[in-house]
Amino acid sequence: MSPTPRRIVALAGGVGAARFLRGLVRAVDPGQLTVVANTGDDLVVHGLRVSPDVDTVVYTLGGGIDEARGWGRADDPTTVQDELASRYGEPTWFTLGDRDLATHVLRTAWLAEGATLSEATAALAKAWGLGFTLRPMSDERVTTRIDTEDGRDLHFQQWWVGERGEPGVAGVRFDGADQAVPAPGVLGAVAAADAVILCPSNPVVSISPILALPGVRAVLRATPTVGVSPVVGGRVLRGMADRLLPVVGCRVDAAAVAGLYRDLLDGWVLDEADANRAEAAAEYADHVAVTDTMLAEPDAAQRVAEVVLDVAEQAMGTAS
Amino acid sequence: MSPTPRRIVALAGGVGAARFLRGLVRAVDPGQLTVVANTGDDLVVHGLRVSPDVDTVVYTLGGGIDEARGWGRADDPTTVQDELASRYGEPTWFTLGDRDLATHVLRTAWLAEGATLSEATAALAKAWGLGFTLRPMSDERVTTRIDTEDGRDLHFQQWWVGERGEPGVAGVRFDGADQAVPAPGVLGAVAAADAVILCPSNPVVSISPILALPGVRAVLRATPTVGVSPVVGGRVLRGMADRLLPVVGCRVDAAAVAGLYRDLLDGWVLDEADANRAEAAAEYADHVAVTDTMLAEPDAAQRVAEVVLDVAEQAMGTAS
Repeated sequence: MSPTPRRIVALAGGVGAARFLRGLVRAVDPGQLTVVANTGDDLVVHGLRVSPDVDTVVYTLGGGIDEARGWGRADDPTTVQDELASRYGEPTWFTLGDRDLATHVLRTAWLAEGATLSEATAALAKAWGLGFTLRPMSDERVTTRIDTEDGRDLHFQQWWVGERGEPGVAGVRFDGADQAVPAPGVLGAVAAADAVILCPSNPVVSISPILALPGVRAVLRATPTVGVSPVVGGRVLRGMADRLLPVVGCRVDAAAVAGLYRDLLDGWVLDEADANRAEAAAEYADHVAVTDTMLAEPDAAQRVAEVVLDVAEQAMGTAS
Repeated sequence: MSPTPRRIVALAGGVGAARFLRGLVRAVDPGQLTVVANTGDDLVVHGLRVSPDVDTVVYTLGGGIDEARGWGRADDPTTVQDELASRYGEPTWFTLGDRDLATHVLRTAWLAEGATLSEATAALAKAWGLGFTLRPMSDERVTTRIDTEDGRDLHFQQWWVGERGEPGVAGVRFDGADQAVPAPGVLGAVAAADAVILCPSNPVVSISPILALPGVRAVLRATPTVGVSPVVGGRVLRGMADRLLPVVGCRVDAAAVAGLYRDLLDGWVLDEADANRAEAAAEYADHVAVTDTMLAEPDAAQRVAEVVLDVAEQAMGTAS
């Protein structure tokens, strides 16, 4: 019989990860869980440091998320940003509601006082009563940049939110990733984990920035790692992975995505709609499971998490 | 016949000054007016740099002030600060409405990007369409501190707003004033002015911090200077000058306040309620006028400003 995975690390992007984690925290001891969030999408808006993926995890797990949008706070007026725009001509392509803005004001204040992003993130997680450890992938700036087909170099958010993802994409880069130290505790948590979970997040701009940090792939290779496919029925449910996967030479396919992680993957969970891709996925991961991966409801997410843990258990039992 | 004062500098605190200035800009060419605002009350709230007197001048002259309170923005919800308090436990003794907060977010961003307080203040003044030049007294930090009778050293705002002015006051200090350089353009504007006006502001914590900066008193002595009494009918209309004047050895009296400026004062304007103090005031200023100094309505403020300009004209005619 395989051991039960206790110490878990989850690598997370935004909405999909947050909804999965809402199930995972019901299936494991949150005190043994570390979530490492992508910060490649972080940006400065009106001088305020915004960590979109961290905030989506915090608000979703803390119960403050706008469920319909999947990001930002529920019932959030935009008085401050309206004033910044109408009075001071500030751009508003990146919407910040007033309650949301409180988070960014405080994060920015803490960073200005000398706190690290890790410390600021931990303080936010504590304020929201999260029972697990939440870490940014790095305290240093790593920025996901989009090289557009028309020759421009845009911040990911400028491309996706600011220009609605319209410009064709020639390349994706993680500026600073090769020099950035993973945040304190990240490599240690992975090395000591019973299993690492790759949340159903965008492989190109959510998971890859974390993997691009020095040492991360190496420790993942030495730890049982299970991923959940963000591709369902040959499509992505939200976001723009369908635009970006081809840029990195990957088809929008639940097995092909597993191939991106082939050097470190031990298990892979696909949606029932992609059952016919399970065999192909088995080329990249020893343990493959097929289940309904819909995550919108916490109950459903918990069931998916339990399947992932089962696969992790299998991987632990066979890990070299 | 005396020359008409054209180039005017006004030294300003908050509410009283702003209401006076609303009349002054109707009585002079705003393009020839420089307002130097006290920044000794500036503070950092939730990491945001707040310049209360600058903001009161900007909002009042720009048409965005909450007339009833005399400070802050009209119709201003407090969603951000409510969130900062309820979610993050931030103190709320210094109320910041959402529209008001937009100003502080932007000022803080500009300063973080390397702008000077002068540059940030000028940008705010421009955004609000102020036709005159608005300068902070210094780009460097000067902080008005209150030594309480119970032995504490409080930021002025902590004492006045945070503790409702309740602790007895043993002393008032302007931390950093003797080392702080007046903001670029301040000494030059005073030196080149036809007349300087001391707005009807708190002598102890609004006008005195400006006078405490190196060089200010010296250039004022060489320029016709006219003050408007902030004491009316032996009382102060708002604020806490009645608490602070005795601390600096000054009675709450429209003539006694003129005595604080005796080394630099050429003219003094008292309210009709203090007509019996005009003779005493003449001991400190060669030119004294008595008028209704109520300022709430712009029309009334304009009339007061015209009296002040008349006195300045007399002072210019006799200045050595």
